[in-house]
Amino acid sequence: MAAIPKTIREAGSAGEEAKDELTRLAEGHLVQPWPVSGSIGAEARGRLEAGEGIYVTDAAGRRLIDGPAGMWCVNAGHRRKELADVMAAQAMELSYNSPWYTTNAPSAILSKRLADHAPQGVDHVFYTTGGSSAVETALRFMQFANNVKGRGEKKLIVSRQGGYHGSTYLSASLNGRPRDHDWMDSASDQVIKLACPNPFRRPDGVGAAEFCDYLVAEFRNVIETAGAERIGAFIAEPVMASGGVIVPPDGYLFRMRELCREHDILFIADEVVTAFGRLGHVFASQDVFGLDPDMITFAKGVTSGYFPLGGVMIAGRLLEELRRSNHSEAMFAHGLTYSSHPIGCAVALKNLDILEGGLLEHARAVSSHFQSRLKALEDLPLVGEVRGMGLMACIECVADRVSNNPLTLDLEVGKRIDGHCQELGLLVRPLINMCVMSPPLTITQAQIDDMADILRRGIELTMDDLAREGLWRG
Amino acid sequence: MAAIPKTIREAGSAGEEAKDELTRLAEGHLVQPWPVSGSIGAEARGRLEAGEGIYVTDAAGRRLIDGPAGMWCVNAGHRRKELADVMAAQAMELSYNSPWYTTNAPSAILSKRLADHAPQGVDHVFYTTGGSSAVETALRFMQFANNVKGRGEKKLIVSRQGGYHGSTYLSASLNGRPRDHDWMDSASDQVIKLACPNPFRRPDGVGAAEFCDYLVAEFRNVIETAGAERIGAFIAEPVMASGGVIVPPDGYLFRMRELCREHDILFIADEVVTAFGRLGHVFASQDVFGLDPDMITFAKGVTSGYFPLGGVMIAGRLLEELRRSNHSEAMFAHGLTYSSHPIGCAVALKNLDILEGGLLEHARAVSSHFQSRLKALEDLPLVGEVRGMGLMACIECVADRVSNNPLTLDLEVGKRIDGHCQELGLLVRPLINMCVMSPPLTITQAQIDDMADILRRGIELTMDDLAREGLWRG
Repeated sequence: MAAIPKTIREAGSAGEEAKDELTRLAEGHLVQPWPVSGSIGAEARGRLEAGEGIYVTDAAGRRLIDGPAGMWCVNAGHRRKELADVMAAQAMELSYNSPWYTTNAPSAILSKRLADHAPQGVDHVFYTTGGSSAVETALRFMQFANNVKGRGEKKLIVSRQGGYHGSTYLSASLNGRPRDHDWMDSASDQVIKLACPNPFRRPDGVGAAEFCDYLVAEFRNVIETAGAERIGAFIAEPVMASGGVIVPPDGYLFRMRELCREHDILFIADEVVTAFGRLGHVFASQDVFGLDPDMITFAKGVTSGYFPLGGVMIAGRLLEELRRSNHSEAMFAHGLTYSSHPIGCAVALKNLDILEGGLLEHARAVSSHFQSRLKALEDLPLVGEVRGMGLMACIECVADRVSNNPLTLDLEVGKRIDGHCQELGLLVRPLINMCVMSPPLTITQAQIDDMADILRRGIELTMDDLAREGLWRG
Repeated sequence: MAAIPKTIREAGSAGEEAKDELTRLAEGHLVQPWPVSGSIGAEARGRLEAGEGIYVTDAAGRRLIDGPAGMWCVNAGHRRKELADVMAAQAMELSYNSPWYTTNAPSAILSKRLADHAPQGVDHVFYTTGGSSAVETALRFMQFANNVKGRGEKKLIVSRQGGYHGSTYLSASLNGRPRDHDWMDSASDQVIKLACPNPFRRPDGVGAAEFCDYLVAEFRNVIETAGAERIGAFIAEPVMASGGVIVPPDGYLFRMRELCREHDILFIADEVVTAFGRLGHVFASQDVFGLDPDMITFAKGVTSGYFPLGGVMIAGRLLEELRRSNHSEAMFAHGLTYSSHPIGCAVALKNLDILEGGLLEHARAVSSHFQSRLKALEDLPLVGEVRGMGLMACIECVADRVSNNPLTLDLEVGKRIDGHCQELGLLVRPLINMCVMSPPLTITQAQIDDMADILRRGIELTMDDLAREGLWRG
């Protein structure tokens, strides 16, 4: 097999003599996410040096469109002076206070502003340092609340194949993507996984409405089998992100929510990706899907990635139930050193100013151009489907357009496309046979055109490579 | 019982008419760590407005010595312009990059500098957003490594009564303090807890050396009973922090480490509190205790609390074992959006400059004055013991000096002392019948005198109250 075009990720694998000092330091001392055993502790990924708007610059001086906006998070774009300034200003005011004993103004103000954007009644916030700790908080709150209510058996968590919810032991146990669990331990006895609601992968001859009926029936069946008295929560990303931008069939979320309500199962909407403008609104649950979850987890876009902040919005009703319980001294023994961090909350407030000050509107305005330009890539024979919503999209490559079978892992098609696109000025997020795109919300119509043009060329070059190597028949 | 003097924590419980707008917002929308059911979602803690050096200023304009340095974290002190400036500068350079695909200069440089301070061979870093995620990373790494090595049964974790390791499901399962678990769920089948190595609470008539023998024998017995082939890791804070600043008996850590080595059990030193100058060195394991752990978890002081950053130092040898395994494609499917955050690592580098530029030396120089001034409080009859090390100390109050029985929870003696001290200009961290002190490392000899004088007066006033109320016989 010919060499796959080199991506930023592998820049460090250059010959010893070509490596710079920083590459050597990273290779010798840094371990980054998702390493494989064969190179763990002895690899360096390509270095980014600077960011500006939708662009990043790598160590070789190449300027690239940041296709995934970091990791679905740089929503307001790189190098926002307002965000840099507010970090410094808050640090010179109050850089830290212990949330166990004291509070601060930015967290109080932010809580109110988030509550105003969330569905009616979902009006309280517990702050964390990111998505994993937000999901842990939601789950530990469910466990605590059911202990206080005297129903300690109602703790099972229902998640879905293809979902992603975090990287701590319990939050990671909910993940349902290939490779999430191969070599990792899970609390599998606490989790039930439903099918992935991916219309593209529904059985042949099954319509979308029928597929939705099947998914809802599956959940109903799980409730009947396991027993509603044993199920504490259902957690779902309204649009599955890392699973490949899966937009569920119409009516799915609403019907799953109704099942939860019927059986007193908490519905946790994991909006770590979909919130803060990715779908054009601060929270997508209500404003995009008409959904009223019991809890909403968030992170990433809340600070545009400038500061590790996450949290969980909790329906006030759930807290009121606890206040009225017979166990007023029962302690929710949960909290992080950095909960309600004053600098993080100050950054989030300024970021919310930016979103409310026109960026949400802009994101909604350019979304249809973004989706239609990418959708047009479906005329390429390697592309099985382009799907998405708002400013998130996925290009899924297939072995052929008849079977729509995904290309095998070995081919690393996503990585090949990424390699070509990087040469052409675009950073892509490759996911096995898929490419995920979720640019900063500041992207203009002309920049969307650039991005789509590069993607088309990158896919064409990949098709050429695969055909030449006899790996794909086109 | 007369009213306990009001602390900042309860400032929000003022009458409706006296509350300001921010207090109302916090009460209505913010949930902070460790609430009790009776007031969850309807309380506001006293607000801090500003910080400067070792001082914080509350909403009423009172200036207080920050006795606990936030939550053991504001090591370099409040309002450090260098730290504020570096946050803004890095945000204007590169505010975020995805650690899955790329790297950045600050994280590579920081890794090398941390490795230089860590014990020989403990030379790799995986970055997280705080202590809980650092501990989760260490534990998930142990599980992964043992899966790759084909010994999937070697997963039990040994921790200790009195220890504190985090607030995610698995990390919290290791905690062994009163009230950590009353209403919370735990992975109790994965954890074995040893006795707390608190010399003050050893049985009557047992010497310190004998007590140490007992603790080591207990661990040896646990290994024999559970089987070394089932135990993956032992985790310990070199000095237990939130458990009440427990300095273990001489030789204890070394002997526990030897038992781990003998049985191929990973020794995880949880240095979330003890690192970054709290005991006068960047890491305390080797430099204070002569210990060479397999992994060291850190957080808090690494950025002086200005930015949520944590991590785990991993012995290179453990990574090399994985590289040499037969499963080179085995994926350590672990990582956080904010792993290796460029701004966090830039803050940590500047913070390390401050520590290396004289602050470590200063901390070592003032430690003995700090310890001796606090130790002198033992002449007060309410005080059973003052213990500590470096710039961390605990004042433990007792029912009487003969039995040394701790005072009951109801008396809230820590909270009473805190209330009086706040009136006098000092913020204390109350822990049931104890007060924990861990000021910013910048504290001067004169400021230590102020602190000790206020503490003495606060304890005297508390004794007066208790005697007057007939709750303590003195």
